[in-house]
Amino acid sequence: MTLPMVVPDPSLPREVTIYEVGPRDGLQNESAVIAVDVKAEFVERLVAAGLRTVEVTSFVSPTWVPQLADAAELAARLDLGGPVDMPVLVPNDRGLDRALASGARHVAVFASATESFARANLNRGLEEQYEMFEPVVTRAVAAGVRVRAYLSMCFGDPWEGEVSLEQVVAAGRRLLDMGTAQLSVGDTIGAGTAGHVTALLDAFAAADIPTSRLAMHFHDTYGQALANVVAALRQGVTTFDASAGGLGGCPFAKSATGNLATEDLVWLLHGLGIDSGVDLEALVETSAWMAARLGRPSPSRVVHALAGSGV
Amino acid sequence: MTLPMVVPDPSLPREVTIYEVGPRDGLQNESAVIAVDVKAEFVERLVAAGLRTVEVTSFVSPTWVPQLADAAELAARLDLGGPVDMPVLVPNDRGLDRALASGARHVAVFASATESFARANLNRGLEEQYEMFEPVVTRAVAAGVRVRAYLSMCFGDPWEGEVSLEQVVAAGRRLLDMGTAQLSVGDTIGAGTAGHVTALLDAFAAADIPTSRLAMHFHDTYGQALANVVAALRQGVTTFDASAGGLGGCPFAKSATGNLATEDLVWLLHGLGIDSGVDLEALVETSAWMAARLGRPSPSRVVHALAGSGV
Repeated sequence: MTLPMVVPDPSLPREVTIYEVGPRDGLQNESAVIAVDVKAEFVERLVAAGLRTVEVTSFVSPTWVPQLADAAELAARLDLGGPVDMPVLVPNDRGLDRALASGARHVAVFASATESFARANLNRGLEEQYEMFEPVVTRAVAAGVRVRAYLSMCFGDPWEGEVSLEQVVAAGRRLLDMGTAQLSVGDTIGAGTAGHVTALLDAFAAADIPTSRLAMHFHDTYGQALANVVAALRQGVTTFDASAGGLGGCPFAKSATGNLATEDLVWLLHGLGIDSGVDLEALVETSAWMAARLGRPSPSRVVHALAGSGV
Repeated sequence: MTLPMVVPDPSLPREVTIYEVGPRDGLQNESAVIAVDVKAEFVERLVAAGLRTVEVTSFVSPTWVPQLADAAELAARLDLGGPVDMPVLVPNDRGLDRALASGARHVAVFASATESFARANLNRGLEEQYEMFEPVVTRAVAAGVRVRAYLSMCFGDPWEGEVSLEQVVAAGRRLLDMGTAQLSVGDTIGAGTAGHVTALLDAFAAADIPTSRLAMHFHDTYGQALANVVAALRQGVTTFDASAGGLGGCPFAKSATGNLATEDLVWLLHGLGIDSGVDLEALVETSAWMAARLGRPSPSRVVHALAGSGV
């Protein structure tokens, strides 16, 4: 298989953790319900391809997201407490109950940096979202469970337009102060560019929030995701969210390309000599297999180049 | 229209020249012949959108590329000696004759950094390609015509695999020493990553070749083009090749995405506060219009996000 020439840049980190979101974020907006067998095989293939952190599902109400009604069944097929880190999303207290009952050792909450998206996505204002999440985070931490917080709309918002660095840092601090271990800083609409990434990471650092507690979650809507990854690597970020085959994205921008494809990220990291533990060939095969299940080609450039449309 | 928030990076150049290759590189591999009226309108729309350098056609033999049989007719409709820089490709002495007769003030030759691609594309070895181009360049320069040299396969070759930095710099030097004003350093297969770009530009600088004489020509085959642009901007490069709507690419890798889309580049530059003179909205409209003429959606992420499939 074609691979890029390895030319390390000594100023960048030597190792990166890819936080794989395909099974949850990637599949949650699929209209046709996908069999739990297929989901379990997807996760197993991703793990076999070397991914060490795979967010597998969300314990959201089936009324909201019918695709995720099988969360407990899927969790029961997987080893949530095993050597591979398998976080699950929990929207609220009830979700945390179900996650704990399924043996989850790592959960994630999903917050907004803007009032408008908090209202659109959670039907709550900014302050109310913190009030909702705080007891969930406190209880999870007390149970010895690691908590990640997603923070969305950090680089712009479809209703509010530009979002200030200060607003994002303030929202991030609230979530970290609750006891969350990691903040996933999300460019939900994909509008951010490399200088914006640098400036936002500088703003977090100036607020004494360690870069080691940040992950970056880029979308490829405007083709900027990998340029943004390089900017974040230069600031020392070592955790990046990505979705196998580029599955999923923002449900509020249907025509747009969504999540950064894990394959495109792995290509970059391989070329930079940065270890991610991922076998690109096995990952591309997995995404081509999933594309065939969904009957739709992968938007990943690397999957397209190496496996054709996959459909 | 959505635009990214402007967050300049003071370490980067303030202005960039986009060398638009859509009308020539983008259209040359279209199998259905495109009417000269459509080509002329395409160029005029690109100029109206603010592009200041547009490579309009190639004076190649119609036997090789039937799509370009109308080169003289197209050139006659445009103002090759006017205020907008309108270079044309010339493969050989005969092509230069035709270009000069058409009033061209700027021509480009297309060379290879590898023996294999020189043989595949030019049916000549590396030394023979220099022997072919030298009199063309000498005669053009004597006629007061600016000459650009494309150097392809600088980041890998489908037959030879990895291509060393030294080989690329040596080939580039040969072309510049002939009297060419600019060298367009091409990642023809799109395999290069950001560290490789930095290392190659360092190698050119170490060989006393000024960065001001280099342009970068990236392909988005593996999604790396914009990350590579950022790496090149950091080294001070200020000329980038791009193709409106991402048209075209390498004829030897048919399934792959080809040229970096001008729109995706303009999005990045806008976000970085770097002036390119381009009106993104007018450019997206032009690419959507061209996609409708070709009956095929644009592969550009920005065109897709802002104009849908365009077909």
